[in-house]
This record gives sequence, C-alpha cells and structure tokens, in this order.
Amino acid sequence: MKESKKMEAALQGLKVVECATVVAAPLCGRLLADFGAEVLHVEHPKKGDPLRDFGFTKDGINPWWKYYGRNKKFITLDISKPKGKDILYKLLAEADVFIENFRPGRLEEWGITYEEIYKINPRIVMVRISGYGQTGPYSQQPGFGTIAEAMSGFAEMTGELDGHPTLPQFPLADTCAGFYAAMSTMFAIYNRDSAASGQGQMIDVSILESLFSILGPNALVHQVTGKAPTRIGNRAPTSSPRNIYRTKDNRWIAIASATQSTAVRLFDLMGKSDLVKDPRFSTNGNRVKNSVDVDNIVSTWVENFTRDEITILLRNNDVPFGPVNNVEDILNDPHAISREMIISKKDRDGRTLRMEGIFPKLSRTPGAIDSFGGDLGFDNELIYGGLGLSSEDIIVLKKENII
Amino acid sequence: MKESKKMEAALQGLKVVECATVVAAPLCGRLLADFGAEVLHVEHPKKGDPLRDFGFTKDGINPWWKYYGRNKKFITLDISKPKGKDILYKLLAEADVFIENFRPGRLEEWGITYEEIYKINPRIVMVRISGYGQTGPYSQQPGFGTIAEAMSGFAEMTGELDGHPTLPQFPLADTCAGFYAAMSTMFAIYNRDSAASGQGQMIDVSILESLFSILGPNALVHQVTGKAPTRIGNRAPTSSPRNIYRTKDNRWIAIASATQSTAVRLFDLMGKSDLVKDPRFSTNGNRVKNSVDVDNIVSTWVENFTRDEITILLRNNDVPFGPVNNVEDILNDPHAISREMIISKKDRDGRTLRMEGIFPKLSRTPGAIDSFGGDLGFDNELIYGGLGLSSEDIIVLKKENII
Repeated sequence: MKESKKMEAALQGLKVVECATVVAAPLCGRLLADFGAEVLHVEHPKKGDPLRDFGFTKDGINPWWKYYGRNKKFITLDISKPKGKDILYKLLAEADVFIENFRPGRLEEWGITYEEIYKINPRIVMVRISGYGQTGPYSQQPGFGTIAEAMSGFAEMTGELDGHPTLPQFPLADTCAGFYAAMSTMFAIYNRDSAASGQGQMIDVSILESLFSILGPNALVHQVTGKAPTRIGNRAPTSSPRNIYRTKDNRWIAIASATQSTAVRLFDLMGKSDLVKDPRFSTNGNRVKNSVDVDNIVSTWVENFTRDEITILLRNNDVPFGPVNNVEDILNDPHAISREMIISKKDRDGRTLRMEGIFPKLSRTPGAIDSFGGDLGFDNELIYGGLGLSSEDIIVLKKENII
Repeated sequence: MKESKKMEAALQGLKVVECATVVAAPLCGRLLADFGAEVLHVEHPKKGDPLRDFGFTKDGINPWWKYYGRNKKFITLDISKPKGKDILYKLLAEADVFIENFRPGRLEEWGITYEEIYKINPRIVMVRISGYGQTGPYSQQPGFGTIAEAMSGFAEMTGELDGHPTLPQFPLADTCAGFYAAMSTMFAIYNRDSAASGQGQMIDVSILESLFSILGPNALVHQVTGKAPTRIGNRAPTSSPRNIYRTKDNRWIAIASATQSTAVRLFDLMGKSDLVKDPRFSTNGNRVKNSVDVDNIVSTWVENFTRDEITILLRNNDVPFGPVNNVEDILNDPHAISREMIISKKDRDGRTLRMEGIFPKLSRTPGAIDSFGGDLGFDNELIYGGLGLSSEDIIVLKKENII
C-alpha cells in the first residue's frame, strides 16, 4: 500500500462535512476518508464527540477515537446558534456530502433543513443516520446500536438454544449503518455525476434497518415454515458440519463444510469415509437435519489433536478450517502480516500506533492511513482560514463559543 | 417507495456481470441491483449457484436464493471452456463492473486475466472476492464465511466469558465482504467518472479482512493494554448499563445507556437517583468497571415488570431500550410496518413472497424490488439475443453445454 495517497486517491476531490458522533456516522465518513475524500468532522466546541471518551483512554490514547477518526480533519462549530448555522451553510455550499446523526427533528429545531441546504447547493447529498429512521412512530426514541441489536433479531438468533440472547461487544449495528451510508452516498453521487442528473438528494439510514437487513431472509423463512428463526448455538441452518470444536490443548477451531466435496474430504481424513453412505449424513440437507450427531462425531475426532496438529492436518487436506483467533494470534499470523491486516503508523505526537489496515485493496487508487483521530478543533485555523475568516474573526468566534 | 424504479433508479446505466456463488459476491451485485444497476448473474449451466439449494427449499422456494438473487438477470455460461470465455469477454466489453469469487488463480487457469480484460475494456472495475484475498500464504485455502468468523476474532469476542466462542447463524462475514465490495466498486467508478481518470481497476476483497475490520480497534486496544479482547458476555467494554435483561413474563429486553443523561434518567425512573452519587456508578467509566453490580441492580428492577409493562415505562421516559424481537415481532411492529421493513411482492409465478425491504431510503432515486431470484438461465434468450446470437446459435451453445 503506497503512502502517496494524495497523488492517486480514489475519492480525491470529494468534500464531506460530518456533524456526527459515536460510531455509525463517523464510520461512514472514515470509509470515504480512507480512500481520499476530504472529511471535516464537526464537533460542538464544548462537548466534542463522545467517541473521544468511548470505552477507556490510556496514556492519552482512546482506541475508538484514533480508529474511527482516522484520515479526517477536525473543526469545532456550534450549529445550534445562528452564527454557527451560517458558517455550516458556507461549508455546505462547497461540499458534496453532508452527514449528520442528530435525533430526527433536532436540526430542524435549529432552522437547518434539507430544503434550505438544497437551495444553497442542489448537488449536495445529505446523509441522515438515526436509530430508527427519519419517519415512523419510534423515530423520536433514543436509538443506540445495542437497541438495534435487540430489536433487529440479531440477539434472538445468536447464542445457545437454552441460553439467553447474545449481544456483540463491538458496534455491529452502527457498522452496518455506516456501510449502508457510505455505499448509498456513492450511489447518489453516481446518479449526480455519471448518470448526469446533476442533482443531490437526501438519504435516510436507520441503524435498526441496516442490521435487520443482514440477518438473512428471515421474513421469507417465517412465511414458508411458519417459524421465526431463533438461537441454535453454533450450528448453521444452512450447512453441516459447521461449528466450533475444542482441541486437545483446550483451544478452539472452526470447521465449515458447506459443499459435498469438502464434507467428503473431511470424512475421508477422519477415516470415516462410510459416513456419506449413511442416509443421515449423505447430503448437506440430511446432515443439517442430523447436525447434533454430525457434531458429536467431528468433535470426538478433533479432541485427539492439539490446535497446531490439527491446523497442519486440515490445511494440508484442503478442509475449510480456521483457528478461533484473538488479535494477538492475528498479530503473529504470517498471512495477516503478509496482507498488512494490521498497520503501524506514527501519530501526530510521534508515537507509533498499531491499527487495523485499509480494506479492501484497490489496485490503482489504494487507500492509506495518513493520520489518526486528532485534537478537538485541530484544523480550525486551516478550514476557517480557507473560508476567508481572519485570525481576528477566529478569535472572536472562539470567545463567543461558536467554534 | 415507488415501483417506477426503471424511471429513476440511482444506478441506471451501470452494467454488472457477476460470476458469483453463495453470499458475499451475489450480495455485492444485489446491493447494486436494488438501486437499479443491470446485474447479470452468471452460473455454470450444469451446477448452477449452490445458493439455489442453501439451507432448505420448501414448495419450490429457497429463501436465500429468492433474497440474495433479487432484481437480477440469470444466464448460464461455462467460462472454463474457450467458447464460454469468448462469450464472457463479449459481455465484459460492454460492462462497468465484473464481480467474481473463484479461488484465486482459478480464472487464470482458464485463461481469464485482468490484463486481458483491461485490454478489451480499460474502463471496467474487476471486483475479486475471496476468503483470504488474492495474495498471501493462505490465499489458496478454501475460505468460507464461518472460517472468517473464527479467524477474524468475532467468535473469540462473542459469548459468555466462561462459555465457548460464538458463531453467527447468518452469513455475517460474507455480508461485510459484500458491503465492502459494493462500496469500493462505487469508489472506483467515482475515480473513473467523476474524477475523470477514465480508467477502471482491480479490487481485492478478502472475506476475512472485511469482518476483521469491523470488530473495533482491537490492535490498538491490545497495544495500550497488553491484552487481547475476549468474551465478556453481553456487557460492552464501552458503556454500562448495557445488557439483555429478563422480564417477569420470561421475555428479554435490552437497555443501553451510553451517555450520562440516559443513565441518570434510568436510575431516576428506578427510584434510585442516589446511584449516580455512589463513586462506583457516578460516571460511565466507573459503571463499566463495576458493570456486574450495575447489571444486578438493573436486572432485579426489570424482573418486576412484564415486557409490555416495561416497554411503555421505558419508552415514555426516554430511556434507550428495545425488546429482543424475533421476525414475527417485527412483522407486527407498528414502526416496522410504517417503515416497510418487510415488503410483500409477487414472484414470477404469481405467488406473493414476504421479504426484507430496500435499505437505505434515497429521496429522489429510491430502490425497489422488481423480482426475486429466478430460474437457471431464465434470461439466456434476452441476453444472448442482445449479443447478436440467433436462436439457432443459442440452441447449439446449449447442446455443447456452453450455456
């Protein structure tokens, strides 16, 4: 991955303003920033983005802030005040994309509306991210990712059959919303530029809907079976064997044999080639129906080997297999190293930080990490100077708590 | 959502050819198809896409096929044969995007290379999706989503602290790869059209890396703490209270209070306003450190109410909250209905199918569901006729098992 991002970034020239907090909306901006868009992260001058204090901060480093804030510029602006709104509108006049994640109606209370923004800049794409979307009976409810993880069906479908619903510990729902937001922003830009409509539009991203949509065809499964999918442990409704198995040295591996040929290879390797002649195990469909028995057989076999032993055995025999890694395993994994899955890079203060890299890999205009999440108002002089404000103007705006 | 998609689709004019199977690559195509791209799903004439038989098929309906195959056209083509390759190249000469998910090197064995495709059509974006990426020591290993779910750290981080690693039962890793693929396709198209490079490029999407990247800043958390994140049940490392709680009628709800004001509102509602004066519970950071105690207090309180009772109580008091829904709950939820989270639409055979809707909502060029996953070779006549092949040519190609 080349460092000369400014020379050949995919999204060079795309200007993004984000009035955004915590994960979903800032992730949208960061996905664009990773590939060269100029992203201004706008924060309240006093409160800042709560993401700065997410989880924990150690030695002045908040991992979430450094990660989701990378490759951006940082300015402060109180858009709830008329003077702040005027400055926002000046920024939006030159922007391609405006990302915001206030509770629906909040911007309007401050007099900031899509209609007005459209008048100033009909080419702008306004991306609105909220817990439940801009409309509907719950739109005014507070929406966090966890709530979407419960309400979407994710929790209901994840975990042991006899256990409680399971939540992810990372921001899954927010991530899905960030993905949808970045992707649909580009759909709208395509319509504006490549399809030559010349017009921007408004995009309504619901965090709940974003996660709901990725859980599989559950509405149709319910229609044809009469049943709502629920927890089934680590089995899948779609293939068997597919589970996590414990090794002799008390570690874990996953095996997945979605196709008949991979299941046959596994059974051959286990010395149990006859299993595919047994009507219970002859096809993927039959194995799914008898997946408890399948898992018992595979599990008993796996327990004979250490994680290292079975890794060599399964890899050499082309059985789809993977160790259950933690991030330390990944740091030491030769494939992860070869692919630069984790990158080291100097922060502004000279300290080298380790971070998940840029994905995916584009051959001609790759992304790059230029910087990490920065200080509140770090780019105020640069950006407000660029708007034509003098140093004295900037000092006055600071005194007035506008920036 | 308007049905007149062809009139005003965001991606009208974008031509996509996908030689793709199961979930990640077909999802990429479907996200583009939902917003009006013309997506040709190319399948082997004998084998077809295994997604057609994913999970289970009932009354001729395979839910996964109907869902991930929606809004596409279906042609058969054996691209491993020289005649098939020639036809593929004719399709690619006119295409904007070529999506493929063969094991790295397979296409090259058949003589299909990016270099040749580039010569025919330098504007094309070639999207290559694989388990581990096109390079690196594991690139030739079979890669399924489950393997990525284990190797990325997802399984390690999900589930009970004293339990085993947890897998999702839906294709999470594939979904992340599909998102990255669709998004980065549009980045490359932007570079080609809006930034006017006029050039396509090659995109290398790894299913493993796609999921790895969304699990949070784990490499940096490990750097600053020396510890690799592992399972912590349903707590989050970033906020407290945040968990699933059981109600009096033995159902489940989630509560998330990421901000101080929402935590205070919850404690007030519980009649325990003093809790924020207790140094163990005074700030989010302190609550995270004492989250077992926080959860015990909240849990004991929640058990006094049925799910319906506590729903009203928490909604009326603006506490971030959500019931743990299954898809049946969502079908009956007034907000989900109002937002068209689930849509009913007639399939080609006249049967009405229910399905997750189109997300997100674009104001001027919304997406639409025009059709569901169709029969093998359904659009052969249309597409091959469009290439100038006569009915006789098509019959001959069928006899030769090329299409």
